[in-house]
Amino acid sequence: VENLEGRGPGEGVPALDRIVFFSDAVFAIAITLLAIDVRLPDLPANQTNESLIVALQGIAPKIYAFVLSFGVIAAFWLAHYRTFRVVVRVDSRLIQLNLLLLFCIAALPFPTSVLARQGDLAVADILYAGLGIAIGLVSALLWRHAVTAHLLAPSVTPEVARYVGRRALVAPVMFAISIPIAFVDPTLAWVAWVAIFPIQALISRRSTVHHPADDPDPSVPDT
Amino acid sequence: VENLEGRGPGEGVPALDRIVFFSDAVFAIAITLLAIDVRLPDLPANQTNESLIVALQGIAPKIYAFVLSFGVIAAFWLAHYRTFRVVVRVDSRLIQLNLLLLFCIAALPFPTSVLARQGDLAVADILYAGLGIAIGLVSALLWRHAVTAHLLAPSVTPEVARYVGRRALVAPVMFAISIPIAFVDPTLAWVAWVAIFPIQALISRRSTVHHPADDPDPSVPDT
Amino acid sequence: VENLEGRGPGEGVPALDRIVFFSDAVFAIAITLLAIDVRLPDLPANQTNESLIVALQGIAPKIYAFVLSFGVIAAFWLAHYRTFRVVVRVDSRLIQLNLLLLFCIAALPFPTSVLARQGDLAVADILYAGLGIAIGLVSALLWRHAVTAHLLAPSVTPEVARYVGRRALVAPVMFAISIPIAFVDPTLAWVAWVAIFPIQALISRRSTVHHPADDPDPSVPDT
Amino acid sequence: VENLEGRGPGEGVPALDRIVFFSDAVFAIAITLLAIDVRLPDLPANQTNESLIVALQGIAPKIYAFVLSFGVIAAFWLAHYRTFRVVVRVDSRLIQLNLLLLFCIAALPFPTSVLARQGDLAVADILYAGLGIAIGLVSALLWRHAVTAHLLAPSVTPEVARYVGRRALVAPVMFAISIPIAFVDPTLAWVAWVAIFPIQALISRRSTVHHPADDPDPSVPDT
Repeated sequence: VENLEGRGPGEGVPALDRIVFFSDAVFAIAITLLAIDVRLPDLPANQTNESLIVALQGIAPKIYAFVLSFGVIAAFWLAHYRTFRVVVRVDSRLIQLNLLLLFCIAALPFPTSVLARQGDLAVADILYAGLGIAIGLVSALLWRHAVTAHLLAPSVTPEVARYVGRRALVAPVMFAISIPIAFVDPTLAWVAWVAIFPIQALISRRSTVHHPADDPDPSVPDT
Repeated sequence: VENLEGRGPGEGVPALDRIVFFSDAVFAIAITLLAIDVRLPDLPANQTNESLIVALQGIAPKIYAFVLSFGVIAAFWLAHYRTFRVVVRVDSRLIQLNLLLLFCIAALPFPTSVLARQGDLAVADILYAGLGIAIGLVSALLWRHAVTAHLLAPSVTPEVARYVGRRALVAPVMFAISIPIAFVDPTLAWVAWVAIFPIQALISRRSTVHHPADDPDPSVPDT
Repeated sequence: VENLEGRGPGEGVPALDRIVFFSDAVFAIAITLLAIDVRLPDLPANQTNESLIVALQGIAPKIYAFVLSFGVIAAFWLAHYRTFRVVVRVDSRLIQLNLLLLFCIAALPFPTSVLARQGDLAVADILYAGLGIAIGLVSALLWRHAVTAHLLAPSVTPEVARYVGRRALVAPVMFAISIPIAFVDPTLAWVAWVAIFPIQALISRRSTVHHPADDPDPSVPDT
Repeated sequence: VENLEGRGPGEGVPALDRIVFFSDAVFAIAITLLAIDVRLPDLPANQTNESLIVALQGIAPKIYAFVLSFGVIAAFWLAHYRTFRVVVRVDSRLIQLNLLLLFCIAALPFPTSVLARQGDLAVADILYAGLGIAIGLVSALLWRHAVTAHLLAPSVTPEVARYVGRRALVAPVMFAISIPIAFVDPTLAWVAWVAIFPIQALISRRSTVHHPADDPDPSVPDT
C-alpha cells in the first residue's frame, strides 16, 4: 500500500498520477481510433450529390457503431474517473485489474468493426456483448477491490461503496440481457445497450446516497 | 460542485487535471490522425521525378483538407485551453458537455476524408460544415454553462464572459454561412471556413476586454 | 544531474514529469494501436452466423498476437513505472536510454503483425524474440544506469538494486531461449514468451527483498 | 505574459503544463504512428523462412525511413523538452509558434511514407528535407521568441541563449545542404540527415557553455 499524499523529498513521480495518466491515454486513443473505421469505400469517379448521399447511407451502420462504442468507452472512462477521484492508495492488485480493464478497452474497436459490418448477425452482437460484460465486470471488480483493500478516501462511506458497486453492475447486466435478445432479433440487442445510459442516469438521480466524486466539497472557496 | 484547490489529505487525482488531461489526449490524437489519410496511392514501378510530382499534385485535396482540419481542431483546442484556464470548479453537466465536444472532435477526421475526396460536391461541404457548427455550438454552450453555473475564477468579469461568449459564435456562424455558399459553388465554402481564423484574430485584437487567460498576470516575478 | 524536488521559482516544467509523461503516451499508443491489426478480412455478402464464426476463427492468430504483445508492453510499462517511482534525478544518458526503449516499444507492432500472419515460421518468431531481447536489455540497462549514476532515491538499497537488476533479465533470457526452440517448432516459442509472466510473478513473490516502489510507505495516513 | 509559479487560489490548470502536455501527446502519437507504415505486403500462402526473409528485405526502405523519422522527431522532442525546461512564462505568440511546430511534426509521417516508397527519387528527398527545414526553423524561431520576449528563467544567460540558438540551426542547415546533394544522388541525401545527430552531439560536448536544462542543479539533496 502506497502513501500518495504528494511527492516527498527523494520520491519519484506519484504512483496514482502515473496510473491515471496511462489509463487516460489508453482510453483517449481507443475512443479516438474508433473513428478510423468510419470511411467511405472507394467510389468510382463522377460522383454526384445524390450518389454521395447514397454512399453515406451505406456506411450508416459504421456511424451507429462508432457512436455506440464512443458512448460505451466514455461511460467506462467516467466510471474510472469517479473511482480514481476517491482512490488515495495503490496496491499491485489494483494495477493488475486496471491493466486488465485497459486491455478490454483497447480491444473494443475490434468487436465494434465486426458489429459495423455484420450487425444483422447474432454472433456479432454476442461478441460485442461478451466484451461489454468483461469490461463491466472488471470495472466492478476494480471498485470492489479498492473498497475491500481500503484504498479509498475516508469520505467514502460503506453506504456509498455499496451504491457505487450496485450501479457498476448495470452495464454488465444489460450486456448479458442483450445476448438472448440477439438470438431472437439481432437488431434489438442495440436497444438493451443504449438503455444502459438512461438507466445509469436514472439510478444516479434517484439515489439519496451522496458520492464524494460527484460533489466532494460544495463550498465555493474563492468567490 | 467540486473544490479543485490542490489535493488535500485523503483526496485522489484532482478532477480538473484529469478532465483536461483526457481532453488534451483526444484533441492530440484526432489532430495527429488526420495525417494518416495523406498518403500516395499505389504507384506502378519505374516512377520518375516528374511522375512523382504529378502523383503528389493528385493528392493536393487531401493535403488541403489536412491543413484545414488541423487548423479547425487547433482553434477549438485553443478555445478549450482558454476556457479551462479560468475554470476552477467542475460539475457533472460540464463533464457531459466536454465529452460531447470530444465526440465531435473525434468524429472530424471522417468529414475531412469525405471532403478530401469529394470536395467538389455540396454534400461533402455540408457534412463538414454541419459538424463544424456542432463543435462550435457545443464549445459555446460549454462556456455559457461554466458562466451560469459559477464554475469560473472570480477574475472573469461579466464583461469578459459576454465577450468570450460572442467570440465563440464566430466559428458556428461562419460554418452556417458556408452551407448556402456550398450550393452555389462547393469550392467557395472553403473561403468561409478559412475566414474563421482572421476574423477571430481581428476580434481578439480589436477588443478592449482583458481576458484573464490571455494575460492573467503581467508581472515578471523572477527576473 | 537535476534536482527534481518540485518547481522552484523561475523553473519550467519538471524534467522527470515530462519524461514520464512522454513515455506513458508512447506506451499507451503502442499498446492500443496493436488492436488495429485485429480486423476481419473483406467478406462476401450474405454471411451467416456459421460463416462469421469461421471468419473469426480464421483471425485467431491475430488475436493471440494482440494479447501476447499487449502483455509484453504492459510488463515493460510496469517495469518502467517501478523504475521511475524511485528515480529522483535525471541525466542526459538516462533520457537517451529512455528514448531507445521507446523506439523498441514503438517498433513492436511490426513484429507482432508478422507473427500474426506467419507465426508458423521460425523467422517470424526470431524477429519477435529479437526485438523482445532488445527491449529487455535496454530496460535492464536503464535500471543499471540509474543505479550506477546515483539517480535513485536513497530508499533503494544496494540489495534492492541487485534484485531489480536480476529480475529485469528474466524477459531477455526467456526471449533468447525461445530462439533455438523456434528452430525446432515455431509454435513452441510462444510457450517461452508466455512463461515470462508467471516466472516474474514467482520471483516477486519469493523475494524477501522489499522494493520501495511496491510498498514505499505502508502507513495509512488518513483512515 | 503569464505568471506560471504554481496554481494560486481561484486559478485553473497552469498554462505551461497544458501546453507541454498537449505537445508531448502530439509528439508521442506522431512518433508511434510512424511504425504503422512498416507492414509486410499481402503474401501468397505457403511462405517459407526463405521467402519471408526476402519479403522482409523488400520492406527494408520502410524500416530505414521509420528509424530516420523516429530519430528526427526524438531530436526535436528533446529540443522542445530542453526549451520548455527553462520557459517560465507563456504568451500567445509562443502558443502559435508551438502549434505551428506541432503541425510540422504531425505532417512528418507523410514525407516519411513517400521516402519509404520512392527514396531513389530526388523529389521524395526534397519533400522530406523541405519539411525538415520547416521544423528546424520553427523550432529555432520558438527559442528566439522565448529569448526576445523574456519568457525564460533568469538562469538562462545571454551566452546560453546564443549557444542554444546556434545549435538549433544545425538541423535546418543540414536539411538544406541535403537538397543539392539529392539532385546528384538521392541516396546520398540520407548521409546529410543522419549526420545531424553526431554534429549536434559534438557541439554539445565541445561547448563550454552551461545549459541550465542539461544540468540546472548539480546538488544531490537527498542522499
